[in-house]
Amino acid sequence: MSQYKVPLRDMQFVLFDVLDGEAEFQRLGFTDATRDLLDAVLEESARFAENVLAPLNEVGDREGCTFDKATGKVTTPAGFKQAYEQYVDGGWTGLVSSVEFGGQGLPQAAGFPQKEMIDAANLAWGNFPLLSHGATEALLHHGEDWQREVFLKPLVEGRWTGTMCLTEPHCGTDLGLLKTRAEPNEDGSYAITGTKIFITAGDHDLTDNIIHLVLARLPEAPAGSKGISLFVVPKVRVARDGSIGEANAVRCGSIEHKMGIHGSATCVMNFDGAQGYLVGQPHKGMVGMFTMMNAARLAVGLQGLGLSDRAFQNALAYSRDRLQMRALSGPKFPDKPADPIIVHPDVRRMLLTCKALIEGGRAMSYHAGLQIDVSHNAPDENEREQADALVGFMTPIVKACLTEWGVECTYHAVQCYGGHGYIAENGVEQLARDARITTLYEGTTGIQALDLLGRKILQLQGAGFKVMLGMIEQFCADNAGNTAVAGFIAPLRATAAQWQQLTMQIGKRAAANPEEIGAAAYDYLMYSGYVALAYWWARSVAASEASAQPDSFKAGKRETAKFYFARILPRTLGHAAAIESGSDPLMTLEAEQFDT
Amino acid sequence: MSQYKVPLRDMQFVLFDVLDGEAEFQRLGFTDATRDLLDAVLEESARFAENVLAPLNEVGDREGCTFDKATGKVTTPAGFKQAYEQYVDGGWTGLVSSVEFGGQGLPQAAGFPQKEMIDAANLAWGNFPLLSHGATEALLHHGEDWQREVFLKPLVEGRWTGTMCLTEPHCGTDLGLLKTRAEPNEDGSYAITGTKIFITAGDHDLTDNIIHLVLARLPEAPAGSKGISLFVVPKVRVARDGSIGEANAVRCGSIEHKMGIHGSATCVMNFDGAQGYLVGQPHKGMVGMFTMMNAARLAVGLQGLGLSDRAFQNALAYSRDRLQMRALSGPKFPDKPADPIIVHPDVRRMLLTCKALIEGGRAMSYHAGLQIDVSHNAPDENEREQADALVGFMTPIVKACLTEWGVECTYHAVQCYGGHGYIAENGVEQLARDARITTLYEGTTGIQALDLLGRKILQLQGAGFKVMLGMIEQFCADNAGNTAVAGFIAPLRATAAQWQQLTMQIGKRAAANPEEIGAAAYDYLMYSGYVALAYWWARSVAASEASAQPDSFKAGKRETAKFYFARILPRTLGHAAAIESGSDPLMTLEAEQFDT
Repeated sequence: MSQYKVPLRDMQFVLFDVLDGEAEFQRLGFTDATRDLLDAVLEESARFAENVLAPLNEVGDREGCTFDKATGKVTTPAGFKQAYEQYVDGGWTGLVSSVEFGGQGLPQAAGFPQKEMIDAANLAWGNFPLLSHGATEALLHHGEDWQREVFLKPLVEGRWTGTMCLTEPHCGTDLGLLKTRAEPNEDGSYAITGTKIFITAGDHDLTDNIIHLVLARLPEAPAGSKGISLFVVPKVRVARDGSIGEANAVRCGSIEHKMGIHGSATCVMNFDGAQGYLVGQPHKGMVGMFTMMNAARLAVGLQGLGLSDRAFQNALAYSRDRLQMRALSGPKFPDKPADPIIVHPDVRRMLLTCKALIEGGRAMSYHAGLQIDVSHNAPDENEREQADALVGFMTPIVKACLTEWGVECTYHAVQCYGGHGYIAENGVEQLARDARITTLYEGTTGIQALDLLGRKILQLQGAGFKVMLGMIEQFCADNAGNTAVAGFIAPLRATAAQWQQLTMQIGKRAAANPEEIGAAAYDYLMYSGYVALAYWWARSVAASEASAQPDSFKAGKRETAKFYFARILPRTLGHAAAIESGSDPLMTLEAEQFDT
Repeated sequence: MSQYKVPLRDMQFVLFDVLDGEAEFQRLGFTDATRDLLDAVLEESARFAENVLAPLNEVGDREGCTFDKATGKVTTPAGFKQAYEQYVDGGWTGLVSSVEFGGQGLPQAAGFPQKEMIDAANLAWGNFPLLSHGATEALLHHGEDWQREVFLKPLVEGRWTGTMCLTEPHCGTDLGLLKTRAEPNEDGSYAITGTKIFITAGDHDLTDNIIHLVLARLPEAPAGSKGISLFVVPKVRVARDGSIGEANAVRCGSIEHKMGIHGSATCVMNFDGAQGYLVGQPHKGMVGMFTMMNAARLAVGLQGLGLSDRAFQNALAYSRDRLQMRALSGPKFPDKPADPIIVHPDVRRMLLTCKALIEGGRAMSYHAGLQIDVSHNAPDENEREQADALVGFMTPIVKACLTEWGVECTYHAVQCYGGHGYIAENGVEQLARDARITTLYEGTTGIQALDLLGRKILQLQGAGFKVMLGMIEQFCADNAGNTAVAGFIAPLRATAAQWQQLTMQIGKRAAANPEEIGAAAYDYLMYSGYVALAYWWARSVAASEASAQPDSFKAGKRETAKFYFARILPRTLGHAAAIESGSDPLMTLEAEQFDT
């Protein structure tokens, strides 16, 4: 079974030393969010993750959720319900939600490490409370007063959970094709009819009610995505006054058998004239969908991060333990029958790759979390707008890169174990299977790439990109004389400059041929992730050297940064070459000529 | 469930158009191996793979092997035994084995497509006959006359199967640590005692006997790998005259629960004074081990290739079927509700990556197979030696690259399916799980990399490397005026030249610091694979254009080659940069400073 220890030290380093979180939170008006309080929250949250959730990770995989066809009910694996009750009792569900609706009112950035540790401890379990957040956000920003009144408090307090019902059998990415219909009832509610698939936490035994946020079409709605509306459809009916009624006409039809996250219920949901209420304007459901989706995307990025870290921790422990062969330069532990495999450069390559992607990714993602707070609470409107643009720009990068790196890091971890990594009882293979969903759900990597290049760069004229470039320039200027980061400034500047050039090059090409956007998107996304990480590594070293952290911690940051610049950042070369080759090599082969 | 159709056309193209197999086989004395005969063999083999093995792939995964603790017996999934009987009855087990021992005497190269199709159809099933090949080779080259007499025919005819018993709980890569002992009996046999793990096909219900090739230590053997001997230990005792005795003292203790290849029995084998016979010289067991291992390594490379192809075929079919979004340049199928996703550049990028790695990898690996035949049968000794050096050089590249690409291609296939790729019933996730073992067993990718750089390049002074470089130079010279490959010659030359420079650079560094070998090995291996594939793609296009293949096939080769040079070959840039950065970025961090 794989182990997990919350990396509190690095989480605190990122939050407080790199991001100067305590001062930032005070500046943004989170007066309660002092270092002392946040440390206490993180420590308590870590105890819950390590002691309650992590031990349930393996049983969740082994048992999975079970489905009773006769009743349409889903039962979660042994221990999941008790853990959820503890989670609710501890007030954890509303950590970063508004005090008005029963939350703790802490900054979003403080929720990021909590999310990371839950995902690392037990990704499948974490999916149950996860989706409530998207539902809460949708109702908060688009719901009517009575809907906020009735639904938000139970969601925030965790008495109910939420879902996002978007996908149908014939459409996932292309929601414009969806068929679920909403017919008006006489009382102002709607009768929702249709089948949704891949509904995470669509049914379960953790709470008495489940609040489905459902995309559907009103009668005579325009075709495509401009005819989609958003509805709130509770599992158990809820009237406008909050009174609870009878069971609604929504039922789980089956659950999927999946490669991983067996403990997470992935449901087919059948709506058969279920009573629902319109959320927001008719035909404007995609706005609410994006509100849910953007929150979920950053959260899925953190899933990739958490799984990477757990995999890395186990691979590291194994590599220190497992004795096999001598170092090529001679025995390092002559008193042992062989050297621990961590002496071998190729094992170090895999471990350092994980460490570099994880710690860099942590800084990158927590900063995105902080920018959400800045975008809501900064005193200056210009600053709020810039932060908002940056969050929009970084969301696809955080989602896609941290999940791709999650696949990569879990791969390396299995590889460090050798054949033992393939054996279920050692637990790392589960992490690899669990990680595999993260590049798929809430928009595949390809969709994130199109969001980044097509929407955030080209449609929105790269507002967030400019903010990011400004941050890099500012850092390079501020640290021109800082010997701690002397080796990093030039390559960071050069890669950022190439980033700009590539962006302009694609923009020009896309003006002549829109297929150039799709052709460049994936490589542009990954290129962006690696530049961003170069920035975060340089900044992390600067912060580390200026901090009161112990020398061995500083050495870890310094040497990992060197490794990153020497061995990972050069991946940009291949991505740049692919981008520069344009769309021709992708588009000339006819669809029927792909067969061998 | 995933589908599989044997890519006969491309297999035949590689064997006959690219490698000129028919003329080569005749030159090497395989007079029966005419094109007509080989076509018939491939077609018949394809029918077996498609109709018998492929449909059992899913049930093998779902049921897995079962183990009865009371009897120590392993039962294979439903249908496996019947399929094995058909395989034996068809004479398939001895296709490329010597006629003297009941084989068909066809060239090794003719066995490669057969192996590929079995692996693609049902990797787990294929592991049962697979290991017989290594056992046969070991007995053929190192066994005594009576051992060849008694064991080979039943192995070749498939009435018995073989195993390789190397790994023990505390040692896999580092066999020098192994503890299994062999005590001499009075009759000249040995009593073998110890525990072996990860024994593929260690027990099963397909045959009456199983022939274990076991590494063990004689009394007072020198420590380390120089004190290891090889023994043949049948499950049911076999006397020197071939008479069958009673059950031997070897028993399966349990089978592993694994990420994939559930239908393949991975056994703990307990030897409790089991009767065995020494194979080859005392303390020289590693020689026999490498004979088995090298055969198995190329075979595992083909497993990666087969899984890649099956995954690709399914992703391609899905991408032509699945309607989602419109092409960025406007609807391609305006009469349908959306365009098939194969119109999207990013889906094409994933499909073309698979096609390029699969078809290039097929040419590369079949050529290695042909070189085995050349090394055994060429009339000229110098040619035999060169071919042998080339096989040795290419073995780690074929093993490691085709399996790494197997992980990559199955990844892309799942990604093309989106969320549907994660669902068990669609079958591609099984291919991803199955592929994951191939970079681990028979030596991890890191071990292949050390074999390539440490042994094949540095210890053996790069004899095989020089042959490969010579082939590239020859091809470039011969095709200097060939317009069909005009765009490929310059980049191929440039990459090969850089390959040489990097090799010399590493050699120099390694002379001063042996850790440089381990630090460069992985990136050097992958660099080598990408250069080799560039060569095979250029040569494939030259062969295709000169062939009688239809235009659409030629277009497929041409455009995929363009894609390869534009989009995949640039991966060498990142690998080169990593190599050039040397060992420092890997070696300076202390083992205890890796924690976050």
